[in-house]
Amino acid sequence: MTSSSTPSSEATLPRGFTAAGTAVGIKKNGARDLALIVSDRDCAAAALFTTNKVKAAPVLRGQAILSSRNAALRAVVINSGCANACTGAQGLADAEETARLAADAVRRLRGPADAISAAQVFTMSTGVIGAPLPMDKLRAGIALAAQQLSADGLDNAARAIMTTDTRPKIARIQRGAWSVTGIAKGAGMIHPNMATLLACVFTDAEIEQSLLKEFLQRAAGVSFNRIVIDGDTSTNDTLLALANGASDLRIETPGQRAAFEQALTDVCVSLAQQIVRDGEGVTKFITLRITGARDRRMADAVGRSIARSPLVKTAFYGEDANWGRVVAAAGYSGEEVDPNRMTLWFGPVKVFEAGAPTDYDEAEATAAMEPADIEVRLDLGSGDAEVTLWTCDLSHDYVTINGRYRT
Amino acid sequence: MTSSSTPSSEATLPRGFTAAGTAVGIKKNGARDLALIVSDRDCAAAALFTTNKVKAAPVLRGQAILSSRNAALRAVVINSGCANACTGAQGLADAEETARLAADAVRRLRGPADAISAAQVFTMSTGVIGAPLPMDKLRAGIALAAQQLSADGLDNAARAIMTTDTRPKIARIQRGAWSVTGIAKGAGMIHPNMATLLACVFTDAEIEQSLLKEFLQRAAGVSFNRIVIDGDTSTNDTLLALANGASDLRIETPGQRAAFEQALTDVCVSLAQQIVRDGEGVTKFITLRITGARDRRMADAVGRSIARSPLVKTAFYGEDANWGRVVAAAGYSGEEVDPNRMTLWFGPVKVFEAGAPTDYDEAEATAAMEPADIEVRLDLGSGDAEVTLWTCDLSHDYVTINGRYRT
Repeated sequence: MTSSSTPSSEATLPRGFTAAGTAVGIKKNGARDLALIVSDRDCAAAALFTTNKVKAAPVLRGQAILSSRNAALRAVVINSGCANACTGAQGLADAEETARLAADAVRRLRGPADAISAAQVFTMSTGVIGAPLPMDKLRAGIALAAQQLSADGLDNAARAIMTTDTRPKIARIQRGAWSVTGIAKGAGMIHPNMATLLACVFTDAEIEQSLLKEFLQRAAGVSFNRIVIDGDTSTNDTLLALANGASDLRIETPGQRAAFEQALTDVCVSLAQQIVRDGEGVTKFITLRITGARDRRMADAVGRSIARSPLVKTAFYGEDANWGRVVAAAGYSGEEVDPNRMTLWFGPVKVFEAGAPTDYDEAEATAAMEPADIEVRLDLGSGDAEVTLWTCDLSHDYVTINGRYRT
Repeated sequence: MTSSSTPSSEATLPRGFTAAGTAVGIKKNGARDLALIVSDRDCAAAALFTTNKVKAAPVLRGQAILSSRNAALRAVVINSGCANACTGAQGLADAEETARLAADAVRRLRGPADAISAAQVFTMSTGVIGAPLPMDKLRAGIALAAQQLSADGLDNAARAIMTTDTRPKIARIQRGAWSVTGIAKGAGMIHPNMATLLACVFTDAEIEQSLLKEFLQRAAGVSFNRIVIDGDTSTNDTLLALANGASDLRIETPGQRAAFEQALTDVCVSLAQQIVRDGEGVTKFITLRITGARDRRMADAVGRSIARSPLVKTAFYGEDANWGRVVAAAGYSGEEVDPNRMTLWFGPVKVFEAGAPTDYDEAEATAAMEPADIEVRLDLGSGDAEVTLWTCDLSHDYVTINGRYRT
């Protein structure tokens, strides 16, 4: 978080939103697995979805809902424990019924004067692929969650969307009249080709839907699309933004636009970094700066090649200043890199320059690998463009978590 | 190995070749680390090299040597323990001196009448990147290896090129007058964008250099380029073929050409599969068949996306019939796949069809994951093209081996 605003990790919702997170029995271990967030008025909405060709039912449904020019969303239902992916026609019907159940529950709670339709309810799912949604549990669970809705409920909602996450991820920025608050879940299956996870960002600013979408796309480009954990891209990844206008402050002037985009971006960057730090088995948070590239596309391709390399990631886990693996991964990125023009730093230690190792002190290089936060910079010596990615190591725990996830 | 020839894993060299493998102190643990193979007459030679833009000194030197129309090679020196990569001008000088030392040693052994030049000696290196070759050890070591040259020395040579390999890799086919014998090392840094490892194939057939190169390229395309371990591509990968003609049988007629290409291919396939089976920490050998693709390029891209996925690989390690991860990895391959047209089998068990799981028996699917050899078939329902890849799981031991390799 930057800027003069007041950053806070408090789970304070913008005005006009309430939330709940409860346990309805989808997860076998009894943990919270159902989140419901409701706005008391129609929201402008924008969303970005996974690029995977295999899209889960809630992704297909969400894309359909948001294809309307003004979606006027009122609520989001998110379940963990079951992805509702690869579930065919039944999966689409179940996603639709989930939305209808939420609309019914809100109507029962608030009376027919505040009726909302199923089409105003966005749904997300995360968890095991291929199993059908346990609709009996959702029927009882959504009614229960609606009764628990409160302005203080976001922390529970953030916990209810967790899978192998070890902690909830929340970010908030207050700026005078309006605020932006986001929650996210990540941990595994994180890869930066858009939408890389489940995340929801809420604001009480009033903003046109098309402008919200434009800002959300740019914010994702420098946040969620800049993180690399294991290189897998999920069937369910979704980033949703809802703006209900409850602050009565409309984002219109260039100054307001800039301030809002910055706040949205800062929240997304914070959530993205929290996801990397809580990645499956992660022991190292690595800020990877690729500088001196001909263009940003080149910097990005080289960075992703390094960030995805299992050999690089295991070396960081082992706190081994194995710069050769970084240089080699740059070499097979498919980009026209030249080792004779490269310079590489691990933290403050320059380890490689002009095609050969520097005469760095091995103890200093090893010391640079010890912190939990490490900056690695590779200058390609080919231009002025640069890109920063955030990534992590590959540990024994990653293998343990993913070798046993379903069982 | 197919065909009516006599396959054998014996380390029998074709006529006219001698070999040695000895310990000269490059590896800290005292294991064999220097291989020398010499032909008693000039060889036709062909080689394929890593596609990595960061190429080790011996790769750059090898490419230069083989750019001549008739290389007339006589010997190969291979060291393990040090890759001589990212070593700048000193690395090139050291590779050249290694070749000269080998030429000198052979001349001392055989007398001036059999003098060979440094340009007739091919060199390869594997091991840690960035460290200079310990030339003092090579000076004494190459002389020692030359004294140990024998027709029975190939097994020792195959052992001397090992790094994290747990066993030597040798394949041999005898066909009447001539034979083809190959050795390889692999284990880590294996990825199929050509040359994926160190391998040498020797034959006493007489064959034109251009024809040998054509056959070697095709053989690599269906062997070494079809294996995926961790997706990394080394700076040093090299596949070399030497044909010394000592059988006096010249490969000329269409029948001879077909027989020779088949033998060369079978040896390369055997070596490639041995490399996967002995991959770092491997507990599962997975034959991945992608069928029903529009073309082979599509089948290949989908297969590589699956074979590289850490989530797929850890699921195989955990013997978890997690077909959703396979379908998801196909989905993010970048190819136009449609889950509604896909069918997926784990061994004999059809687990997914037409966008949804079949009603397979979970116990049968789990049982299909238990063997050390598993066939996975994904039909894309989009055409007639197919590709087979060989890959492996991702285990705790992979992380252990690569987290601590240098230290």
